[in-house]
Amino acid sequence: MKIVVVGATGTIGKAVVGALQDRHEIVKVGKKGGDLHVDITDAESIRGLFKKIGSFDALVSAAGKVHFGDFGTMTEKEFTVGLKDKLMGQVNLVLIGRDHINDGGSFTLTAGVLSHDPIRYGVSASLVNGALESFTKAAAIEMPRGLRINVVSPGVLTESLPTYGDYFRGHEPVPGARVANAYLKSVEGRMTGQVLTVL
Amino acid sequence: MKIVVVGATGTIGKAVVGALQDRHEIVKVGKKGGDLHVDITDAESIRGLFKKIGSFDALVSAAGKVHFGDFGTMTEKEFTVGLKDKLMGQVNLVLIGRDHINDGGSFTLTAGVLSHDPIRYGVSASLVNGALESFTKAAAIEMPRGLRINVVSPGVLTESLPTYGDYFRGHEPVPGARVANAYLKSVEGRMTGQVLTVL
Repeated sequence: MKIVVVGATGTIGKAVVGALQDRHEIVKVGKKGGDLHVDITDAESIRGLFKKIGSFDALVSAAGKVHFGDFGTMTEKEFTVGLKDKLMGQVNLVLIGRDHINDGGSFTLTAGVLSHDPIRYGVSASLVNGALESFTKAAAIEMPRGLRINVVSPGVLTESLPTYGDYFRGHEPVPGARVANAYLKSVEGRMTGQVLTVL
Repeated sequence: MKIVVVGATGTIGKAVVGALQDRHEIVKVGKKGGDLHVDITDAESIRGLFKKIGSFDALVSAAGKVHFGDFGTMTEKEFTVGLKDKLMGQVNLVLIGRDHINDGGSFTLTAGVLSHDPIRYGVSASLVNGALESFTKAAAIEMPRGLRINVVSPGVLTESLPTYGDYFRGHEPVPGARVANAYLKSVEGRMTGQVLTVL
């Protein structure tokens, strides 16, 4: 399969690429790194990306930013970051990518455990992850041409503990290799409309 | 209690007002109807509303629009309707209203069954409802001054069948009076961070 991995140079992306690259052709996409570049907050940039890629069989997105911060001082502005980036950035990869993906292809997005297990400073991440999980369930039933869509919702990654460990005290970390397995299940299996929680 | 009901003239709003008005002072807020008017997509309009209301003990929001339509032809633009209106409109009622609500007060928002039980044409509604449910779980753990927040997630209302029945074939309708009970549980009980599913 020809598989596009958006966010290929991130912690999850690297693990997914590592797990897929022996059996598949991988197009590594990053904001700055990788084979091709994209700004997922910009629909024009996404259109340009798919024009360069041509047709493909699966897209994995492990990309997207949200604002972490004290809910007490958050305004609409801080929520907009996650809405434009991790949420609508990934949704737009589907809305635009569906015109380029082969019959029976799959989209696999990334949400996260905060959708249902919140932490301090994580309100915007929770909102975005919940939106992505429900979007996936609904989009799956309206996909044409046998296209599939799933979302992986992992706990905090072991590899991310140096950066995020303080936010996720008491959360059981998950090794990247185990998270990568969920993406394989989505890409190489036949499921659709599923939230693949990895805890 | 002094209770603000936003969306007071809608199907859910009317049922909630009916269930609360004998025991409480109700401020009925609508887009056009009710005692006071607000455009929840406009933060300035929300600020103006709370200035008029002064302090209060509970806010119920049963307001918010989303775009219903064929997912196959939906673009970012159609998703923006729900993000600005039902999602961030209700979130902004909390972000701005929290400066005016009394200690121990409560916010009760409205999501809906499509967060986890999708229908054709409902992708944007699903996304928004999922976002509201996860937002509520997360916001609850960072609320100051004993403030509470819950979200009611009802199935299609019996009273809405003439308008929405065709979209919700096979969904068991719920009478407005039963949905109103969930708002009472949130406003007059002590729970927080809960998704009150009414099916």
